[in-house]
Amino acid sequence: MPHFNPLIAKLSPPPVPSVLAWAKAYDGARGPLIDLSQAVPGYPAHPDMLKWLSKTAASPAFTGYGAIEGELSLRTAYAAHVSGLYKASIGVKNIHITSGCNQAFICAAMAVAGAGDTVLMTNPFYFNQQTTLAMLGIGVELIPCDAGTGFLPDIDAIASALKPGVRALALVTPNNPTGSVYPPALLRRIFDLCRANGTWLILDETYRDFLTEGSGAPHELMSVKGWQNSLICLYSFSKSFCIPGHRLGAITAGPAVVEQVAKIMDNLQICAPRSAQAAVAKALPALDDWRAGNRAEIATRAEALKQVMSKLKGWKLQAIGAYFAYIRHPYPDIRSEFVAEKLAKLAGIVCLPGDYFGEGQEGYLRFAFANADAPTILQLEERLSNFNLPGL
Amino acid sequence: MPHFNPLIAKLSPPPVPSVLAWAKAYDGARGPLIDLSQAVPGYPAHPDMLKWLSKTAASPAFTGYGAIEGELSLRTAYAAHVSGLYKASIGVKNIHITSGCNQAFICAAMAVAGAGDTVLMTNPFYFNQQTTLAMLGIGVELIPCDAGTGFLPDIDAIASALKPGVRALALVTPNNPTGSVYPPALLRRIFDLCRANGTWLILDETYRDFLTEGSGAPHELMSVKGWQNSLICLYSFSKSFCIPGHRLGAITAGPAVVEQVAKIMDNLQICAPRSAQAAVAKALPALDDWRAGNRAEIATRAEALKQVMSKLKGWKLQAIGAYFAYIRHPYPDIRSEFVAEKLAKLAGIVCLPGDYFGEGQEGYLRFAFANADAPTILQLEERLSNFNLPGL
Repeated sequence: MPHFNPLIAKLSPPPVPSVLAWAKAYDGARGPLIDLSQAVPGYPAHPDMLKWLSKTAASPAFTGYGAIEGELSLRTAYAAHVSGLYKASIGVKNIHITSGCNQAFICAAMAVAGAGDTVLMTNPFYFNQQTTLAMLGIGVELIPCDAGTGFLPDIDAIASALKPGVRALALVTPNNPTGSVYPPALLRRIFDLCRANGTWLILDETYRDFLTEGSGAPHELMSVKGWQNSLICLYSFSKSFCIPGHRLGAITAGPAVVEQVAKIMDNLQICAPRSAQAAVAKALPALDDWRAGNRAEIATRAEALKQVMSKLKGWKLQAIGAYFAYIRHPYPDIRSEFVAEKLAKLAGIVCLPGDYFGEGQEGYLRFAFANADAPTILQLEERLSNFNLPGL
Repeated sequence: MPHFNPLIAKLSPPPVPSVLAWAKAYDGARGPLIDLSQAVPGYPAHPDMLKWLSKTAASPAFTGYGAIEGELSLRTAYAAHVSGLYKASIGVKNIHITSGCNQAFICAAMAVAGAGDTVLMTNPFYFNQQTTLAMLGIGVELIPCDAGTGFLPDIDAIASALKPGVRALALVTPNNPTGSVYPPALLRRIFDLCRANGTWLILDETYRDFLTEGSGAPHELMSVKGWQNSLICLYSFSKSFCIPGHRLGAITAGPAVVEQVAKIMDNLQICAPRSAQAAVAKALPALDDWRAGNRAEIATRAEALKQVMSKLKGWKLQAIGAYFAYIRHPYPDIRSEFVAEKLAKLAGIVCLPGDYFGEGQEGYLRFAFANADAPTILQLEERLSNFNLPGL
């Protein structure tokens, strides 16, 4: 019998493929599959994005090894973007490009914590962040985020969890899975608590581009003096540009963090794939209007889902945010994994069960509503109202 | 002051960028720079390779998330390739695609070892493998590979180092940095020792495509009954197809290993970049002749280097293999880092110092001779014979 690292052996298989397997078992009886599982906007990448991807991939200039920290063009473009969005002074030295945001998270986590250390997360959490820490042997303590407070992290719970030596607090805003958007003032209070305790705040903002227009900067933490010693911000180009298959994300942090991350990235994969970096460097300023249009489109999808949920009995829209909705299903004694499996197989609605996101989440389902257009979302009304869990 | 993970903080900065910085300080006085540092064949990717990369990057089909284990097309093509090369029965379930071979290594290492465990490596070693284990808190013990035995690992040293609980032995053949090619019979003896001790053999074969033609299968380990419980083979598409910037590698192992690696990869980056996978799936069978031609070309480069070295006084070609040569410099009391820096800055010859590859390697330089064509390599004779270390 092969001997594996027990930290890996005891991890469950990646959740998304098993959910997609349920979807394959759907016979189409209720109409086309509605896939609200993995966060993938249901519209295609912009034709110019594909054109630039194609052009850079054709170029011998990007076939060789690149800078570990990322292509200068993308680091420059992204630094300018972040500077504008947060009204902060962010330069190339603050940016490290990664292969997607999961990689940004593992780099950030490894930079500040090792086996035996403790990192705080919320409950519910984004499962890949939890499994990443678990596989590294990093201990996790959970900060409750309850429905009653809109799934915002409890500030008192954070204060008492921030014991000496806690290496980091990992937050996701707009949140995955709940959709909850953490207010700037709350983030500031949390950040101050972290700083006072010598604890890093790792802030995953993968879904920030889908915040309602005019909502201002997501936070002002990068204007706090000395922020570089306590803050690591993560981002993904996958969702905004509809190119998760090209695997690009970014870390924004102090130059000392970028220096540590470069050492980790050199071991993880030397550098992120180059040609896609060059293409996104062009797209980042050029497709600004297109992204704004998508933001508006996704807001109409949120409205459609609210409309649907208000008409359904037993189902409750517990939270909805920039990309995700967190929905209470009508079967209090049944685990959401079972409900989600049956929804996929019988009703052709694919979503992720709350079980996957933490403790006590059996009553919830995560709908990545931004994946489907408004007319499709409106079909959920009929499908959910006609849905009956077998055996009940 | 920011608090970093001490395992990361104490790692040296990645070595290659500092070497490339020396190169930038060269004034061109001796002629164009001869870059024998990072392993990058000095010829471009095949035009069809670029065409396929461009075409797949233009396709919306590869913009979404892909299978964690890799594109079915590439896993199928690579399984067929491996089956032919090793005369073994390798299927899709034996293959996991990664973003380059460093990532294949960290996945393999994490699958079988965690912080506090012990893994054996050779001395000298490929530095990224050593830093990968160090940053994970995995203990490393070194098996000496000395010039006197052609830098082959000492079988008796392996036998005595294989104490109970040793999780893996990591070998690189053809070797980086020495170029040494481990004979199949030696690999079989080592493998049997590993199996008897319940220790995984992790075999990095990044440079196997540059073995002399007609040298047969690199080893027969994948024909040993039960090999899946003890062997993990690593490979890179970067060198053979001249596309390191696209970051693609592969793991060949038992399905149980692939299952563990998928859990790790899901956390590391979900999946390797997709469009390049689809392109390499086409290239793998189609560019077979082109790769054979490159193999022959690189053999002529090896001959050119042998010719040069035979004429030089004080310099000694200690080993030469599929891609690298390991060269003793003429300054027994000077560290190779200093020699390499001066060679780059004053003679325009960029190579990696032996210091970077392990203990007691101060007398050596690694020449990635396959990077330069034969006429360029012949220029080394004049440059090296006219080279004088300043202050001596």
